[in-house]
Amino acid sequence: MKADVVVIGGSAAGIVAAVTGKASYPDKDFILIREEDKVVVPCGIPYIFGSLKSTEKDLISDNILTNAGIALKVGRVVAIDQKNKICKMEDGTEIEFDKLVLATGSMPKVPGWLKGANLENVFTIPKSKEYLDKMLEKLEGCNKIVTIGGGFIGVEVSDELNKKGKEITIVEILPHVLGIAFDEEIASIAEEKLKDRGINIISGVGVKEILGDEKVEGVILENGEKLEADAVILSMGYMPNTGLAKQSGIEVNEKGFIKVDEYMRTANPDIFAVGDCAEKRDFITRKVSTVMLASTACAEARTAGMNLYKLSTVKIFSGTIAIFSTAIGETGFGAAGLTEKMAKREGFDIVTGTFEGVDKHPGTLPDAHKQIVKLIVARESGVIIGGEVVGGPSAGEITNLIGLAIQNKMTVNDILTAQIGTHPLLTAPPTAYPLIKAAEVVARKMNPV
Amino acid sequence: MKADVVVIGGSAAGIVAAVTGKASYPDKDFILIREEDKVVVPCGIPYIFGSLKSTEKDLISDNILTNAGIALKVGRVVAIDQKNKICKMEDGTEIEFDKLVLATGSMPKVPGWLKGANLENVFTIPKSKEYLDKMLEKLEGCNKIVTIGGGFIGVEVSDELNKKGKEITIVEILPHVLGIAFDEEIASIAEEKLKDRGINIISGVGVKEILGDEKVEGVILENGEKLEADAVILSMGYMPNTGLAKQSGIEVNEKGFIKVDEYMRTANPDIFAVGDCAEKRDFITRKVSTVMLASTACAEARTAGMNLYKLSTVKIFSGTIAIFSTAIGETGFGAAGLTEKMAKREGFDIVTGTFEGVDKHPGTLPDAHKQIVKLIVARESGVIIGGEVVGGPSAGEITNLIGLAIQNKMTVNDILTAQIGTHPLLTAPPTAYPLIKAAEVVARKMNPV
Repeated sequence: MKADVVVIGGSAAGIVAAVTGKASYPDKDFILIREEDKVVVPCGIPYIFGSLKSTEKDLISDNILTNAGIALKVGRVVAIDQKNKICKMEDGTEIEFDKLVLATGSMPKVPGWLKGANLENVFTIPKSKEYLDKMLEKLEGCNKIVTIGGGFIGVEVSDELNKKGKEITIVEILPHVLGIAFDEEIASIAEEKLKDRGINIISGVGVKEILGDEKVEGVILENGEKLEADAVILSMGYMPNTGLAKQSGIEVNEKGFIKVDEYMRTANPDIFAVGDCAEKRDFITRKVSTVMLASTACAEARTAGMNLYKLSTVKIFSGTIAIFSTAIGETGFGAAGLTEKMAKREGFDIVTGTFEGVDKHPGTLPDAHKQIVKLIVARESGVIIGGEVVGGPSAGEITNLIGLAIQNKMTVNDILTAQIGTHPLLTAPPTAYPLIKAAEVVARKMNPV
Repeated sequence: MKADVVVIGGSAAGIVAAVTGKASYPDKDFILIREEDKVVVPCGIPYIFGSLKSTEKDLISDNILTNAGIALKVGRVVAIDQKNKICKMEDGTEIEFDKLVLATGSMPKVPGWLKGANLENVFTIPKSKEYLDKMLEKLEGCNKIVTIGGGFIGVEVSDELNKKGKEITIVEILPHVLGIAFDEEIASIAEEKLKDRGINIISGVGVKEILGDEKVEGVILENGEKLEADAVILSMGYMPNTGLAKQSGIEVNEKGFIKVDEYMRTANPDIFAVGDCAEKRDFITRKVSTVMLASTACAEARTAGMNLYKLSTVKIFSGTIAIFSTAIGETGFGAAGLTEKMAKREGFDIVTGTFEGVDKHPGTLPDAHKQIVKLIVARESGVIIGGEVVGGPSAGEITNLIGLAIQNKMTVNDILTAQIGTHPLLTAPPTAYPLIKAAEVVARKMNPV
């Protein structure tokens, strides 16, 4: 078998690399190889535990590939022969390629030191329909659930299970859940919302052991406290799935990600890597980063797809801007770039400004939400390097506004003079648009009168 | 009496000029003079006819001024003595100023040629609490209402009155309602939504006469058709309120707006003008513009406030980007910059791209809305010069993303490589984010393979 371009991996990054590549080079043959029979929408996974009720409602249709004229093969690639440009599959098939895109994704971290992590009813959240279907079925019979790890996945899964009436406790080793993505004062708001919804949160303490004979019976914390549980969800982060790359002589960095340049090429110019498996460099700190996001993965995949056969200096991936958002109940949360804490730790001299307003105007309108914007700004240049948002359903797109500002290296003055369209039902008022008011707070601190 | 800075006008632009000015120059005394006893939130006015039920819920609190240490005077300025730097008020008070900001706003256009325009129960929508209170009371007894003019105000007021069970007909002389802000295919979607909600639309035909003896009885269209009506709302646009400026020798342009530079100064460097009364120049066409928006007004007001005593070349107003948004029922609509029609008329060689997706992911989530993004791009440079959006509650902020892209002179390639944060409940999917997919459509048309 032979294809001009072979993409390994069928989740967001693989799909987007294949579709963008095929659209950019329609004369080339594309084949996408993946292990899963059906592919779940990765960011939708937490919602199968509540709002969506099943994985069937969280599937990516193969029509995206077939309509674009991309061939699909289900199976496992076991080796890449770089010299002869061949992918070897478990079933013996060999596929020759001209260009190869690795989009092998990531896998949940399971801490080897954690006693009881292999008991029945201890789950992780992998991107596998089969696993998730079984997990959903088993969770039906469980009532007391402990989530270990209060990052986005842990929080979202817990909130969804809570909707189904389960008794949920999140255990987070950091002082606050979502404590990496948000500064303390914003993370605290998220925590309050979760508690209001009936979720127990134990933060600032680690887990010592998962108890049980065959099945989970409880969790012992580092402070000796014992929590009863008939299921445990481990959401302690993800690690890049790069075994195949390593075995095939493709270089990975010190964190286990496949090394790539700004065109998303590995050291072998015919082999690209995109998504969770590919090396990331922070847009602002320029350090190697471990932030894995479907949105970043898709941006990388578009870059690879466009540069497969013809490089373009105006279509490069110039570093990861961590842009997150989530919702807890009716409240949206988002962050872009660096938090205040991160910025300080990285050595930036910064000025921050926060403004609290409302996401409709007048605030007497039905369904108005509090809207908070915090900006993190480099003092020397006035350039925006981060922002955090709390609000209603528009919080995700306001976070994207901050992301776009970071990407354009906009300064506080650019924001102060920015034009923003406003509407009573859709946005904050023009007189007190929190993004601009937060910039005013920063400006006044930078140039005290 | 004497104040360092006098601001005339108490709506959005006046308030923001005063508050920004006072924050920038806290040592100066500020006084704001306005005619109204109480000030309504301008963009909120349409919503007093339905959702808010009264003007009381649509008021701007004077606390914004008093908390900022700005003095307030209610009354009418009848003359400005430029030479002696004095404002003369109707009650005889004279107020000396060092700097003056004119924020005298706009007034509804009432066509002199329209017979019957002065009948009882013919209304306009001025920014006057007193007028609106009376109007609300009178409309209580009216059932058949004809709105003449299907711009944003006409559409929003009609939709709100419709919520109260009134029988509404919008008459629009252009082929489509909202036909200036949106291209035909987007305006048509808005029209369909309005019709689905039970609003009658008659477009492509003008009004000949309003019928009635004392009170309105009907409307005769140019095609001879007669509509019964017990009230008529004229929403045929606004004109700048610049009588005072003209009488005082302050130059206005050919459209009646006070001439200003990019610092918002008139020819007299001690007199600034901001908001609906101030001259506008389009960011893209560089032509004099008549677009009046509260959001633009506030951007101008911030510029004036910051530049009152010290000019800053990085805090200028570099031209109006028309950024509009509105909502019809659950559907949000927005536009930024030029429409396709406008761009062509102005002589731009353009490429457009439209993508239709969904505002949540997977689209099976409850309350997911169709999301459409259209981009208008200059062929020669790839620079984004306009965009239109249809979606859910986030449509306003997506419109602002396009606005920010226009402001930053971002190109299609910048959008193709942009990083966008996504979340199932808050945004479109990362694999098919309509803003980026629309850019892909444009890119493929620009560089056919």
